[in-house]
Amino acid sequence: MTATKIAPQEPLLEMDFNHVMAENLPPEIGLTLPEIKALGPALKQAHQALMQARKDGLLPFYDLPFQTRELRSVRRAAEEIRRKAENLVVFGIGGSALGTAALFQALAPLNHNLLESSQRRFPRLFVADNVDPESITALLDFVDPRRTVFNIISKSGATTETMSQFMIVYDRLRKSLGRSSIREHLILTTDPEKGFLRALAKREGYPVLEVPPQVGGRYSVLTAVGLLPLAVAGINVSELLKGAAAAAETCTKANFKKNPAYLFAALAYALNTRRGRPILVMMPYSSALSSLADWFCQLWAESLGKLKSTDGRTVRAGQTPIRAVGATDQHSQLQLYMEGPQDKVIVFLKPKTYRVDLRIPQVFKDYDQVNYLSGHSLGELMAMEQASTARAVARAGQPNMTLTLPRITPAAMGYFMYMLETATVASGHLYQVNALDQPGVELSKNYTYGLMGRPGYQNYMDEFRAGPRPKKKYIL
Amino acid sequence: MTATKIAPQEPLLEMDFNHVMAENLPPEIGLTLPEIKALGPALKQAHQALMQARKDGLLPFYDLPFQTRELRSVRRAAEEIRRKAENLVVFGIGGSALGTAALFQALAPLNHNLLESSQRRFPRLFVADNVDPESITALLDFVDPRRTVFNIISKSGATTETMSQFMIVYDRLRKSLGRSSIREHLILTTDPEKGFLRALAKREGYPVLEVPPQVGGRYSVLTAVGLLPLAVAGINVSELLKGAAAAAETCTKANFKKNPAYLFAALAYALNTRRGRPILVMMPYSSALSSLADWFCQLWAESLGKLKSTDGRTVRAGQTPIRAVGATDQHSQLQLYMEGPQDKVIVFLKPKTYRVDLRIPQVFKDYDQVNYLSGHSLGELMAMEQASTARAVARAGQPNMTLTLPRITPAAMGYFMYMLETATVASGHLYQVNALDQPGVELSKNYTYGLMGRPGYQNYMDEFRAGPRPKKKYIL
Repeated sequence: MTATKIAPQEPLLEMDFNHVMAENLPPEIGLTLPEIKALGPALKQAHQALMQARKDGLLPFYDLPFQTRELRSVRRAAEEIRRKAENLVVFGIGGSALGTAALFQALAPLNHNLLESSQRRFPRLFVADNVDPESITALLDFVDPRRTVFNIISKSGATTETMSQFMIVYDRLRKSLGRSSIREHLILTTDPEKGFLRALAKREGYPVLEVPPQVGGRYSVLTAVGLLPLAVAGINVSELLKGAAAAAETCTKANFKKNPAYLFAALAYALNTRRGRPILVMMPYSSALSSLADWFCQLWAESLGKLKSTDGRTVRAGQTPIRAVGATDQHSQLQLYMEGPQDKVIVFLKPKTYRVDLRIPQVFKDYDQVNYLSGHSLGELMAMEQASTARAVARAGQPNMTLTLPRITPAAMGYFMYMLETATVASGHLYQVNALDQPGVELSKNYTYGLMGRPGYQNYMDEFRAGPRPKKKYIL
Repeated sequence: MTATKIAPQEPLLEMDFNHVMAENLPPEIGLTLPEIKALGPALKQAHQALMQARKDGLLPFYDLPFQTRELRSVRRAAEEIRRKAENLVVFGIGGSALGTAALFQALAPLNHNLLESSQRRFPRLFVADNVDPESITALLDFVDPRRTVFNIISKSGATTETMSQFMIVYDRLRKSLGRSSIREHLILTTDPEKGFLRALAKREGYPVLEVPPQVGGRYSVLTAVGLLPLAVAGINVSELLKGAAAAAETCTKANFKKNPAYLFAALAYALNTRRGRPILVMMPYSSALSSLADWFCQLWAESLGKLKSTDGRTVRAGQTPIRAVGATDQHSQLQLYMEGPQDKVIVFLKPKTYRVDLRIPQVFKDYDQVNYLSGHSLGELMAMEQASTARAVARAGQPNMTLTLPRITPAAMGYFMYMLETATVASGHLYQVNALDQPGVELSKNYTYGLMGRPGYQNYMDEFRAGPRPKKKYIL
């Protein structure tokens, strides 16, 4: 299923933005061609800045599709894990989890983890991205440690949540299998030099893979962070990188009219800032792509949600991303999209062809209420529902675009994710914010460090405790 | 795990809204007590209207906790299914799926479906709420039809997506097991009199359960829609109803200061309409509660997202709900919540005590970077992260409240869901919209009927085809 190839001449992505344009929407809602063209100079500047930053080594995610040495290490490690393990558990959070979860769901059989080992060619993959004791207990109760490898992923090498998980598992492995066996059940993915995980790997000789230092978490899916677990689960990571390499070509074209990443960035930016669309809904018509929307939500939210512009003005930039899934959420969110506030742009995503299809047979021909379905396929139904919904929300005044992959393959996914990463850094230039940092998450982290008693964070505990005390009258 | 009881004197929900109040937020952002009190008369009117509608039989969801006959039929049917089946597959969408999925995830062991039958006391439960041919194929490939019962749920008895799934399975059952065996593998849940499913059940003698006619899909989790599959999966549905019954008491108090549903409605309404907060984030700090947020998103979006007020004015009401999960989304969405547009209210949800907890052992005492974690538990870490995040976002100017369940039990879940349903219908009165209908979803449906060739919908196909044709220049 994962090795299906796309004919080289077939584009890996089609972007239909008819429903963004003024002529197809109620008055005052759509964009005009001159308006979009007017963004040309800003996009040109963005392009030059991005290409310069790439040259200066500040945006190495651009070059991830062309890794060769790293890919070899990943492949070797993956083969060894596949040989010995029944389960691979990823401990990671945020950028260390979302890309892997998205691609595993998109590209592995949708029932992969449910299958018994005789029915599966590759180990199960679990991405444990929370420290909820209930979910961690359920997971650890399920996997047999003797047949399980734990991939601990932390770029900094000391992420609170991931380290907490790791310490629990380390202790269990030591107690159940003995200290000398631990290394057989671990693989660490972290900075090439810095941090706790790196130091530990050195001291204990644990297997370890690198996250290139300048690649931020949310841009790291095509490093060992994503590649190792995906390769273990049987995903064709070479094809994934090939698709990304194809995007590296189209998404670095200076002319934004030929560059899907810049065009996506321009349309979303214009709709947000010129038409009051602070919400972007990413709505794949595919169960396999639902986690991809989660990955996108991090990328978009964390990269563009910024208090300050790069020149220090207070801007409170950002567009709130939302995940929805078609056709399911037509029965949940569509009512709001149709009749609620006109504050959204909707991005539909769909495969042109599903990897399998099912025909609806004629079994109730006496019943007109359902007989009209006979002879159609579920794939057709999905496509018709998507087209119907796109048209309906446009008529209701919610601009939308439809992105089409030829089918869900590693190459198409690599292309798509690379395109969105490039669109995100280009958007950063349009909003004039730094799309690579996340200063806003520090305060909450520091309070937690303070409350946990981490050395050096006493002042945050003091501040937390001195803060407004909850009043009883505001508690029901 | 599911039978844990709460001491009767312990409240099933605590609502802390300190971080909504002006004194705990930056200037101009929080609400003042007089402002909240000023909503008293509107809430009183809402209360009177709701109680009258309840008396008139228009809001039967209020009385679902007190079903007895229905509960008996559900129990009997569930017992029979448990005896014969290894898998229960629910075919349903929207309100026929989301409540069940939420409660199954919250109350069954988190690894329930992964366990082999010898490790499980109850059948697996799959809620198949999409017509994606890839996911349906993966599911049907996995379940052995001889050991599977399909619960077809459609209030109208003819929902396109659900009927398509049903027709495919019906045909397969007939071919693999023979027509006379079909009834052993089906249970239909639908209107007591109307629609295709009811007619078919009558003709063929298939087992069937009722959805009370006036209970809309998104308010139907405590009918057979949710109760049957949950009972099959081993959830204590009596306790669930008991919790809802407790909510039926507190959530019908006229005084909104003592009624958590009215208070929740008032705060969310005031923040949206008086403080420009069109987005509401529901963020449980619990993996088990993540699907509960999806259920809430339907309830809130579909009930309040309305073009017209009840007296016919164009209002475009609504507040866009978003699901987030703590602590995970601190590494995904928090940056946006902290620094992006001040357009959100965040509702944190957490259990006071997790059902199990895990201590972080001291295994790396030479490493200060992680050693501070030793001795704490994951439950503590979750609680501290939640408290830290609530404080941090308040300081950043995003009002928030924290809802606390004593622990995740059937009773607490029943209470919580009932509370939110009541809050939603009360909100409908504050926004002056009909919280029970969903007229906006018809247009997309009608286009699909037209495209599928359903008799009587030719005009929608014509309209669709005559509509603006996609221009090639708007496709990249």
